Amino acid sequence: MKIARFSEHGRDGLAVALDGMDFKGLFLDKLGIAGDLQTALEGGPNAIRKLTRALSLGEDVDLAQVSLRPPLLSPEKIICIGLNYVDHSAESGFVPPAYPTVFSRFNSSLIGHGDAIERPQTSEQLDYEGEIAFVIGIGGRNISKSAALKHVFGYSLFNDASLRDYQTRTPQWTIGKNFDKTGAFGPYLVTADELPEGAKGLSLQTRLNGNLVQDGNTDDLIFDIPTLIAELSAVMTLRPGDVVVTGTPAGVGAARKPPLWMVPGDVCEISAGGLGTLRNPIVAAG
Amino acid sequence: MKIARFSEHGRDGLAVALDGMDFKGLFLDKLGIAGDLQTALEGGPNAIRKLTRALSLGEDVDLAQVSLRPPLLSPEKIICIGLNYVDHSAESGFVPPAYPTVFSRFNSSLIGHGDAIERPQTSEQLDYEGEIAFVIGIGGRNISKSAALKHVFGYSLFNDASLRDYQTRTPQWTIGKNFDKTGAFGPYLVTADELPEGAKGLSLQTRLNGNLVQDGNTDDLIFDIPTLIAELSAVMTLRPGDVVVTGTPAGVGAARKPPLWMVPGDVCEISAGGLGTLRNPIVAAG
Repeated sequence: MKIARFSEHGRDGLAVALDGMDFKGLFLDKLGIAGDLQTALEGGPNAIRKLTRALSLGEDVDLAQVSLRPPLLSPEKIICIGLNYVDHSAESGFVPPAYPTVFSRFNSSLIGHGDAIERPQTSEQLDYEGEIAFVIGIGGRNISKSAALKHVFGYSLFNDASLRDYQTRTPQWTIGKNFDKTGAFGPYLVTADELPEGAKGLSLQTRLNGNLVQDGNTDDLIFDIPTLIAELSAVMTLRPGDVVVTGTPAGVGAARKPPLWMVPGDVCEISAGGLGTLRNPIVAAG
Repeated sequence: MKIARFSEHGRDGLAVALDGMDFKGLFLDKLGIAGDLQTALEGGPNAIRKLTRALSLGEDVDLAQVSLRPPLLSPEKIICIGLNYVDHSAESGFVPPAYPTVFSRFNSSLIGHGDAIERPQTSEQLDYEGEIAFVIGIGGRNISKSAALKHVFGYSLFNDASLRDYQTRTPQWTIGKNFDKTGAFGPYLVTADELPEGAKGLSLQTRLNGNLVQDGNTDDLIFDIPTLIAELSAVMTLRPGDVVVTGTPAGVGAARKPPLWMVPGDVCEISAGGLGTLRNPIVAAG
């Protein structure tokens, strides 16, 4: 099952494709108070079933004809994992970590598929990072690796676009990862049952203006998804709707000689088997 | 004006003291849907006035007789500033930064005044950090330093309790700052009009079991509150209810020889002029 959040004429809606890409959906104002995806995730499997059944009885939604929004607008947490592919860790000048490197994004940085990634006036070092994201369905603390995948609701793509000069101006990367309109999330969520267990073996590619610039595979994650869930939940309670962005493979612009920065007019696309393509143009902030 | 969130017999309420410490309040279920502080902050000054007037006509609330909760349970952002006092920056082995060092907390780490700070089973390096927090009232992007203080709703105290081994295990501090029940926030919010402009000149003290362990003053902030608002809003949109935790002065346990860790049975208290005292016992996680 795929779930998309869309917008048409200023109204937000949700759409579901039970099989393939035939999306059907409803505007949120027709769904009532329990109709939002975050609320349904908090409600558990029955609430999700009720929501997706209602959506599946809705109108046809052609994703090419509507604006897509981030599948979740206000996750309580956006947990980002750094240095999670050996080759990217090396190109960034780090030894492969023995424990996950964690930073975070705020919701204010999120945009959806098709939205423009904004290059601020204050930096030219706008870099792409193609990543796989997963969304927690069932929350918990101290989740074991063996039980971890039961806690995953679904997967999506993420462009963790970064302002490298801001990222490295202090020891903490947070600022360079949190410019408004730099965190692209989408195009839609794909529930875990549609993908290999733990999203293993997915080819993950980033293209800038059609040129392949990152070509990774989730088999090369240093900390795979069960390990991330176990390690994160050993520290903090994970809640329904929390988003974990799992890290980027080699090929980022900052590691190239000369560096390759995204500039207004560029188009960045991230794709992975089963998750579609997350496409975002680059614009200059006004 | 002071605003406290409290809990009694499992019901949450809000209380206001228009002057001094005479709190009056109501349970949230009597306040209706617009009654929560976050909602009122989003509604703007009129919504705040409506809420605080309703509370001021409520019942007497003796803060010593109720449980206090974090003034805001689910801020969209908890933005933490590191290394923001010269003497703490030096004791931590850093040169004073030229740009704010930013990391973040998730809501899952928050506790209120009186709640126990939990030392996890996996670390003994639990350290205190007494800090001043401020809450955004009016949101915005690219806010100038001269206009910044108009965007502050109020101030409170924060214990940014940290697991130092986890904090330094990777280049990013996020994990060591986000154990459940380590971020103490309270005891209440004090609106900006009750304090010196920009919370200047506040004595900020941390006591562990009654012994003074940190003794700072907000006049020594490297990046004062208007500067933080200007720099943060140059990057990201600030929204009503966002919390900024401004950094800790010298004296943390990790910088002592030998180190001074908080252990179960300890009591940590943070106080600052006009903001009261934030008191939390330490317990071992079960």
